[in-house]
Amino acid sequence: MAARELFVEQGFDRTTVADIAARAGLTERTFFRHYADKREVLFAGDWLAARMTEDVAEAPADLTPIEIVTRAVENACDGITSSPDWSRDRARIIADHPELQERELAKMGMLAGVLAGGLRERGVPDVTATLAAELGVLAFRLAYERWAGGRRSTRMAPLVRVVLAEIEGVAGGA
Amino acid sequence: MAARELFVEQGFDRTTVADIAARAGLTERTFFRHYADKREVLFAGDWLAARMTEDVAEAPADLTPIEIVTRAVENACDGITSSPDWSRDRARIIADHPELQERELAKMGMLAGVLAGGLRERGVPDVTATLAAELGVLAFRLAYERWAGGRRSTRMAPLVRVVLAEIEGVAGGA
Repeated sequence: MAARELFVEQGFDRTTVADIAARAGLTERTFFRHYADKREVLFAGDWLAARMTEDVAEAPADLTPIEIVTRAVENACDGITSSPDWSRDRARIIADHPELQERELAKMGMLAGVLAGGLRERGVPDVTATLAAELGVLAFRLAYERWAGGRRSTRMAPLVRVVLAEIEGVAGGA
Repeated sequence: MAARELFVEQGFDRTTVADIAARAGLTERTFFRHYADKREVLFAGDWLAARMTEDVAEAPADLTPIEIVTRAVENACDGITSSPDWSRDRARIIADHPELQERELAKMGMLAGVLAGGLRERGVPDVTATLAAELGVLAFRLAYERWAGGRRSTRMAPLVRVVLAEIEGVAGGA
């Protein structure tokens, strides 16, 4: 994708919407029909919310809330890592920009809301639904950071359970 | 404080900086010397970061990382609940505005960074420091929501450990 190439080649700050449109052979107007601004190219992740909603709704009845969330998050990891080079570049671009970090946290908050809503739909009590969703999203975020900063051969999805086990251990020290 | 009164009396959306300045007997120019916009009145929480930094630095040497974070967060609760009516109103104002929720998440992300940095300064390994800080801030945020939505006689600080114990329990189900 034109925007991605440019962000990687010349940096996020130096890339303008005009650059992106030129590279993609589009008008700026067409760009703005799809994205509110150049940042949104990094966060066009509504598919994550849609997929998580589906995964939670269709999970087997005998799973615990955190297990339902974990599986949804692991599937999201597989979606992300289907373009591993871009996903690593994206993590680096975001880590370098406080404003993009805010946007990332907001998107994660949105995903937590989606997951919690899906669990409540299944009859999970509100407190448990909220906690399981927040923990799943925290594990997702930390697994992404760790994967993006780690060796290229590492898979992201297994890191989610590693982080959740660490969370249990660290929380147990209180 | 003028802004707070107005947000409660006439709602956040309907309150302008001109209203706030008039009520406070200031010029708008003076308002903008202190705050970037009217939202920032809700988030003038740099004292939280400063206090947490101090609490982490001064914690006894024999505490676990999550215990250090928990105590810093409990102290922050006491700071917040010293104006309980305002803190409850504030939670309601934020819950009603997605944009303010984003800002709140960003501030929480900043506090997690502060706590993790403080732990690393004490020699806590990076992974543990990050996890303990993120869990402390998650417990803080969920305790705040629960406190703000609960009975007026409830204290906020004890809810932090309640939430952390729930986190351990829910994470253990994965």
